[in-house]
This record gives sequence, C-alpha cells and structure tokens, in this order.
Amino acid sequence: MPTDIEIARAATLQPISAVAAGLGIPDDALHSYGRHIAKIDHAYLRSLDGRPEGRLILVTAISPTPAGEGKTTTTVGLGDALNRIGRRAMICLREPSLGPCFGMKGGAAGGGRSQVVPMEAINLHFTGDFHAITSAHSLAAALLDNHVYWSNDLDIDLRRIAFRRVVDMNDRALRQITQSLGGVANGYPREDGFDITVASEVMAVFCLARDLADLEARLGRIVVAETRERKPVTLADLKATGAMTVLLKDALQPNLVQTLDGSPALIHGGPFANIAHGCNSVIATRAGLRLADYAVTEAGFGADLGAEKFLDIKCRQAGLAPSAVVIVATVRALKMHGGVAKSALGAENVEALERGFANLARHVENVRRFGLPVVVAVNHFHADTEAEHAALKALCRDRLDVEAITCRHWAEGGAGAEDLARAVVALAEGGGRVPHYAYPEEAPLAEKIRTIAQTLYGAADVQIESKAAAKLAQFEAAGHGRLPVCMAKTQYSFSTDPGLMGAPSGHVVAVRDVRLSAGAGFVVAICGEIMTMPGLPRVPAAEGIHLGEDGQIEGLF
Amino acid sequence: MPTDIEIARAATLQPISAVAAGLGIPDDALHSYGRHIAKIDHAYLRSLDGRPEGRLILVTAISPTPAGEGKTTTTVGLGDALNRIGRRAMICLREPSLGPCFGMKGGAAGGGRSQVVPMEAINLHFTGDFHAITSAHSLAAALLDNHVYWSNDLDIDLRRIAFRRVVDMNDRALRQITQSLGGVANGYPREDGFDITVASEVMAVFCLARDLADLEARLGRIVVAETRERKPVTLADLKATGAMTVLLKDALQPNLVQTLDGSPALIHGGPFANIAHGCNSVIATRAGLRLADYAVTEAGFGADLGAEKFLDIKCRQAGLAPSAVVIVATVRALKMHGGVAKSALGAENVEALERGFANLARHVENVRRFGLPVVVAVNHFHADTEAEHAALKALCRDRLDVEAITCRHWAEGGAGAEDLARAVVALAEGGGRVPHYAYPEEAPLAEKIRTIAQTLYGAADVQIESKAAAKLAQFEAAGHGRLPVCMAKTQYSFSTDPGLMGAPSGHVVAVRDVRLSAGAGFVVAICGEIMTMPGLPRVPAAEGIHLGEDGQIEGLF
Repeated sequence: MPTDIEIARAATLQPISAVAAGLGIPDDALHSYGRHIAKIDHAYLRSLDGRPEGRLILVTAISPTPAGEGKTTTTVGLGDALNRIGRRAMICLREPSLGPCFGMKGGAAGGGRSQVVPMEAINLHFTGDFHAITSAHSLAAALLDNHVYWSNDLDIDLRRIAFRRVVDMNDRALRQITQSLGGVANGYPREDGFDITVASEVMAVFCLARDLADLEARLGRIVVAETRERKPVTLADLKATGAMTVLLKDALQPNLVQTLDGSPALIHGGPFANIAHGCNSVIATRAGLRLADYAVTEAGFGADLGAEKFLDIKCRQAGLAPSAVVIVATVRALKMHGGVAKSALGAENVEALERGFANLARHVENVRRFGLPVVVAVNHFHADTEAEHAALKALCRDRLDVEAITCRHWAEGGAGAEDLARAVVALAEGGGRVPHYAYPEEAPLAEKIRTIAQTLYGAADVQIESKAAAKLAQFEAAGHGRLPVCMAKTQYSFSTDPGLMGAPSGHVVAVRDVRLSAGAGFVVAICGEIMTMPGLPRVPAAEGIHLGEDGQIEGLF
Repeated sequence: MPTDIEIARAATLQPISAVAAGLGIPDDALHSYGRHIAKIDHAYLRSLDGRPEGRLILVTAISPTPAGEGKTTTTVGLGDALNRIGRRAMICLREPSLGPCFGMKGGAAGGGRSQVVPMEAINLHFTGDFHAITSAHSLAAALLDNHVYWSNDLDIDLRRIAFRRVVDMNDRALRQITQSLGGVANGYPREDGFDITVASEVMAVFCLARDLADLEARLGRIVVAETRERKPVTLADLKATGAMTVLLKDALQPNLVQTLDGSPALIHGGPFANIAHGCNSVIATRAGLRLADYAVTEAGFGADLGAEKFLDIKCRQAGLAPSAVVIVATVRALKMHGGVAKSALGAENVEALERGFANLARHVENVRRFGLPVVVAVNHFHADTEAEHAALKALCRDRLDVEAITCRHWAEGGAGAEDLARAVVALAEGGGRVPHYAYPEEAPLAEKIRTIAQTLYGAADVQIESKAAAKLAQFEAAGHGRLPVCMAKTQYSFSTDPGLMGAPSGHVVAVRDVRLSAGAGFVVAICGEIMTMPGLPRVPAAEGIHLGEDGQIEGLF
C-alpha cells in the first residue's frame, strides 16, 4: 500500500492559478509560492465584502484515540464529494504545526486519496505563516524584557509576567527556564518558559482577526504582565503592535492549495484545540463562504473541545452561522472507547463497538444542544467488517435518530464520500443557523466553565482552585467578564483523565489555573494536566526523515 | 529627501521572470515568491556545472564607524554600473537578519538609488531561508536534549554540551539561561543560551556547502557535545541530519531579485562577519559566476574581518579565485578614524581625514598581501567637500599607489559608479587569481591566529588563555589542525578594543576562547569581548515600524 507521501507525490497538480480561476479569482490577486501554492491578496478579499455567503459545514469528531479517526481526511473527502455532485465547495483547514512532524504525530494534510497537496510543503514551512507568528511573538517577548532592562517606565512587576516565549518545535527542555542570567548586560534574571507556537495568543489572535486593523487592535489588547499596582500591561503599552502587524501582514493572507481531486482548499492558521480555540482563521472561512456555495471546515480534536469552541468562540465572535455538522467516527476508535486494546482492533467486536458508541452518542447529543443538524461520517478502515458498520448505523438510527454514512474517501477520494455529501446538502438546506451557545455572555466566568463541564462533559462538579477563582474575580473586575471561556483539557476524554474513554459521568473537573487572552477574546481554563509544549518521543520521526536520491522528501507522514 | 523605503516603493519593478530571462534562466527553473522574488531550482543550477565562470569581484571596506560606509550600497552601485557599461554583472549579497531590523541597525538592502528590491520583503521574512535555518538548528537542539532524556545511549556529558540554541531576534534575556527545570518530565537541568540565528554553525554550513549532499555531510560533522570520555558527539550521531536537510532543501536554492536599476541580484545566506565567516553562500556565488561575466559580492564589516575570511575560508574551501577587490571608504568615516566626533562631521577637516587615512591604508596593504589588485571606492556623502575628495585621492595615489574613485551611486544609481566600474574592469583583466592565503593549512592553529593578528591587525602579540590553548591542542589531536581559523573580533578596530580607531599598532590580541566548527570547516577564535546575541537599544526601531493607511510598511530603514 503506498504511503500518503507517495500518493501525494504521484499526483499531477493543476497550476494554482487554474484553481484560483475556477473560483473567479484573477491572477493579480494571487501571491504565488511556487507553482502550487498562492496567497490571496488582502485587497481582493476586501472586494468580496457584501457578496452572499455559502453554507458553512463543520466537521468534528468523537474523542480521539490512537486508532485514528481521520477528521482532516474526511473534511477533504467531503469537500471533494460536494464538488463531484455539482456543489461548489471550498475546504478550509488549519495549517499543520512544524514541530510535531518530527515527533510522532506526523503531518496534518489528510491521508490516502483525500489529501491537500503539495503535502510536504504544507507540512513543513508552507508559506511561512507560523514562522511569522513565531517572529512576531518573539519580538514582543524581546521588547518586554528590553523595556524592563532600560527603564521599566511602565513599572512592570517582574514576578507577574504572563507572556511566555514560543518556538515551533517539540522541545520539553524549554518548558521551564530561568533567563537573563550572567550579569548586568543580560538583564534581570527571572523564570520563564516556551510554549509551542500553535499555543501562542498571537496565533489565536491571528485566527480570530477580521482584518489587519482588527489584528493590530487585538494584539494591542494582549496582557503580558502586571505592574506592582496590579494594573495590566499590554502589547500596546510596549509599542509592539505596529512592528508585529508588519511581521504578520503577508501571513494574514489565506493560502490557496488543492486536493488530490482538484478541489480548492484554504489552509490558514492553526491554533491548538486543547489550549487555544483550535479553528482555522476567520479570514479564510469568510473567504471560503464568499468564494463557494459550501465552505467545509474542521475544528481540532473531539467535538467537546473543537466544536464547542468553534461555536461558542469563533462563530460567536465572527457572527458565523453553520448549516450542518458532520461528526467523524471509526469502528476502530469506537471499539477502543469500548475497551479494546489497539493490538486487538483487527478482530470483529460488535459488543465493544456498542459499548464505545456511548462516546459518539454524547458528542451527537452535545452538538444538537447547539441547535444544529448532525450527520455521522463513518470513516472506513480496511479491517472493518460489514456487521460492525451495520451495527453502528443501527445504533445511530435507533438510539440517536441520526444518519450514519460509511465513507471510503481515504481509498477512493471524493467518489467515496458522495453519500455523505448528499446527506450534508440535505441537512444544510435549512440554511445557516445561529447556534444556541452553551452559555450566555453575561454569565459569570465560573458559571460558564461549570455549564460546559456539566452539560457537555457529563461532569458532576467543577473544582476551581482558589488561586484560579481569585483570578476569575480579578478578570471580571477588570471588565473581562463577558468573554467566552476556552477550555484547556485533555482531548482523549470528556473528563480530565486521558485514560477515561467512552462517556464517563459523575467526574469532577479540576480547574488548576485560568489565563486571560484579552487579545484573542477569551479566558482559558486549564483543567487537569495539559501541556503547552510537547516533547519528542524516544524514537522521533525526525530520525527517519531524509532526502531520497532524486531529492524527494522521504519519511514524512 | 526621500527615505530608502520611499525610494524603493516608488520604483517600478520588472517581473522576476523577465530578470531571469535576461540571464537565460527559463521559467520552469524558477520557484516564484510573489511577482518579484524567485528561487532558482537546484536541478537548473546543476545544469550549469562546467560552464565557464565570470570574474569575481569582492567589495570590502574600511573599519566601520557610526558615520556609515555603504558597502552593500556600493556593491549594488558597482553591479548596476557594470551592466550600464555593457558588462553582464550579477550582484551577490547576504540576506539581512530579521532581528536587527527592530533594533538600531536597520535593514541591509543598500540605500538611496542603489538598493535591491522589494526591500521590505528582503529585510523581513524574504523567502524564509533564515526561518528554515532557525528551524533546523532548533530541531537539532531538541533532538540533543531528547536523546539525553530518553536514554543517553551516546553517553553525552551534560557539562560539555557545545551546541547552543538560536532565534532570529535581538534578545539579550536569552543569552544565558538554565533549562529543563520543573522536574522529571522536563529533563535534566543544565545551563544553555541562545545566539542570534546568523551566528549558528548551521548558517555557516549553509553558506559554505557546495550542494545538498555537501550540506548534509557538513551538518553531520557539527560537534554538539562530548561524551564523558571526551569523545565528540556529532549531529550525525544524533541522526539529525536527514530531517535538517529536508528543512533546508528549499532554502538552499538562491534567491533572485533585482536592483532599482534592474540588475539581477542573488541574495542568499547571511552569516555574521564577526563571529562567523560573513559571506553570502558559495552556491549563489558560483551561480553568479556561471550566469554572468562579473559576480560582484561583499564580505561583512571591514576587510580585516570580512575580506580575510572571504579569502582564507570561503575562497580556499570553494576554490574561488577573485579578480579584483574594491575597498569602500567615505570621507566622513575616515574623519572619524582621524578623531572627529560624529556631530562634527559636517565641517571640512582635511587634517583629520589624513590621520584617519591610516585605517584605509592598512586595509589596502592587507588586501595586497593576498596578491589581489585593489581599487578604492569613495562613497560620496552630500556634506563632503571637493578639497576632502581631492586630498583623499592624492593620499591614495602618493602613499599607496592605488586609485581612489569618487562614486555617487547613492544619489544617482549605477550612473554614479561608472568610473568605478571601468576601473574594476581594467583591474580584472588579468583574470582570477588564487589568493596568497595569510597562512598555510599545515601551520598549527595558534600560529594561524598569531599570523593574522600580527600581519593583518598590526598586533605586537597574541595571548591565548590557557583553557583556549588546551582546546586548540585538543582540536589538533582530533585531526582538525588543518582547518582555517575564523577570527571573532570587534568590527570597529584592528585591535580587540572597539574604541581604538585608525590603525593601532603594538596591541595585544587576547584570545578568550576557541570553538570548533567542524561542519563549517573552521576554528573560531574569540578575541576580546564579542557578543553572539545582540540586544535592543533603549528606543528600538520596532517602536516606529507600522503599517501605513494604504497597507504599506513604514519606519523600516
């Protein structure tokens, strides 16, 4: 069986100008990066203002397992299938993070016959957007310490600096450091640490900004520290935002590529879905809605994290109204949720599937609470049996009254997802719906956290540590009480224990810390143990990545 | 008077494909980055192997002062002028470093009417080459700590890790850190620090590599640590080089842009000239020699640093034979070398000029020791007087028997440097000359350092600290004795004291430390105080950089 990279390499790609022409985008609105990637110019995007918008389809998933679900793959397959059945569809994805490609996660450009290409470029430097975000963040960090070094006119309290540094690499050694050692010339020693770039608030701001002016305004609101009088110090106070916006100007233009089937795809922005909001950029989504009849987008990890934040944060902030939601599940993953070990997934096990179905059921019920129509996409794996697929469909129909559709886009490309596409078109006929958000803006922050945990996660209770509770009170006193909350929680479980698969109930969600992201426009609630800087595994993927004899990239997956 | 960025923005640029066509480069050998920047494909560059090579012209300068000399500006002006007088010339420059643009140095794309464009792109992210180098370096650093974390099968001595981290930002707070704090999950705590990306050995390797295979081999030779038995540990031992090469693959293709006059320019690589070798990439220089009759290139800072390393390291390693050397001087800078304060440079002062001439004289004599023909380019500033220029020319003629030519390319573009171009053509008629290197390969490392200091810097003596001397002995024992030395020294003086301007003699060069760059292929001798990570000034340029109302970049200079 050929690998993803072999399939991608064997494909014949259209010139990106041809893909753009198919969308009505003129050549002079493109900034090309080689023959197969282009950024779409800011001015052209502005010229689309006021155009009628297509229908927004969200692809989300069950809680992820090591068995693999294929959310990106299904997003690509669905977009391809919509185009095949005569609907003009744009696929809107997040950009992969560079660091994890060298660890164990691999790339994030789909798989099999449902990939966006050129996958090597997309998975590595792409158009440099994440490098620009890293640079802008690094500049802000340097300006902060530089201000303290020379004058500290802003009276920054060195003990209360909230702005960490970032790098787009899995580097556990940088999680916690002391810096500015070595004497007077190097500044005032203090504790600090690095997150991975996708966890940067600059990344979240980038993805939520309407345009360049909104980007700059949001950057200016990022709170980086407090003064000795506990007043917030922002990036605007540090005069950092002009130069940061200059660094981000080109990056903020969405990237146009194509799928193996030739569908257009915008790949833009990529915040973490566990500690940030996990959706592609608002600018790309809006462009997709204006350039096509359907914009198919995904949100990171399971629906408890990605879809909830997509709806309560992204849609609410940007005024987006989705028309339908696809929840991706696999027989394999549901069997794992039902207690089967990864090594035993090859054997048919309808009983375990039925147990694990509880995970899917809760995600379906959760999405329905938002008032949105749902369909389940069952992403077919070759070891699945007929009986398993039949059982899953019956469970969906009988217990949830939701349609489950077997999809074979991994093996067949868009042709394998046409049934799904037809179901989505039928669901989306009602048009866009403003979601019933999980909580009202005016609810107290702690109440918002509690609502999400109890109604969506099935928790019995929430325990907010006293330090975190004090910070919430402080955020509310400072006028941030109306912000939505961004839950930072393990993606593997509805609870904060990654080992609790299926659909646990009665658990307690411990909120260890809360952080204000005033620029992004949310308050992060850190639940249980969650890392903002991954490490590399014992045998990193990097060891197998190399150039082949013909100069092609090998070992990237 | 318009600023550099205003002049650059007002220019009408040719499509980069037209610039390439003028060089005979077909469209399918280009990877475009927008309309005005393209990378030249590896395969096309290989197809040039065996083509006759043009003449290599080095542009170097007197010791820099705050008055400004204009070495890049003169390199651009000379290239433009050669094209104007009917010689086909390619300009080969280094890529500017991002971090210093936000400090006080500003960009490095020339000035006035002698700039490479688009200057904003070139000065900021450009084609992402430095980001790729930062990523490759960061991956190696992460793999190193990750190896120790999981097994330390290589028996790395944590106290003897030589490979620091890098970021392309002026961030003094990161010069010296402790990392891996916070417990078991974050690794073994140790001291570390960040250099700016242009100081990375990966950058030096990138610039000295002949091709992708040589790049990978050199990366593999980079020594990152020692074992407890004092055996070297390399990036090949860490299995890092395949993935690093993949990250650097596209970056290693040189970047084609144009000057305001429409001349072609390759801008590629950018190692520091004080702590690294300070020259653009060998790949770009070779491409320039094969695509044009003249390749005009520059080496960083004054001739004591840049030209010496260009000749003793780059030309020696790559087998390059320059045809002529241009030494850039200004009346203003020589007056500063003669003791005039920056604030008093507006007044005519022939006496001070004559005193400061000693600096120029030593650089001319030094370059002649390498057996190369020299011409002095006097870069005209508007406050210069006729008497000063006449005096400088007479001094050059009478004391050095070298021609000094007043150039007005800053104000006039290539038209202002035609006299210089004609002089360069005359000097270069003799063809390429293998330099008389300052020292033979087989001399002991300490001897090489002494030779450079005494014959080129005018030093009375060299004092190598005992720890450094022991390391030199160790390098020689390990088989690295034949490597050239790369002097890391202040750029402001022939001595190690930045305040000693003019042409000091009898000083002692203190060698504080030595570092092995086995991948780049040299031994760095750190003389006096020299920083590998700059800081930001009290009022950083970043504060004035912003987007204007029409979306144009303002405040970059």
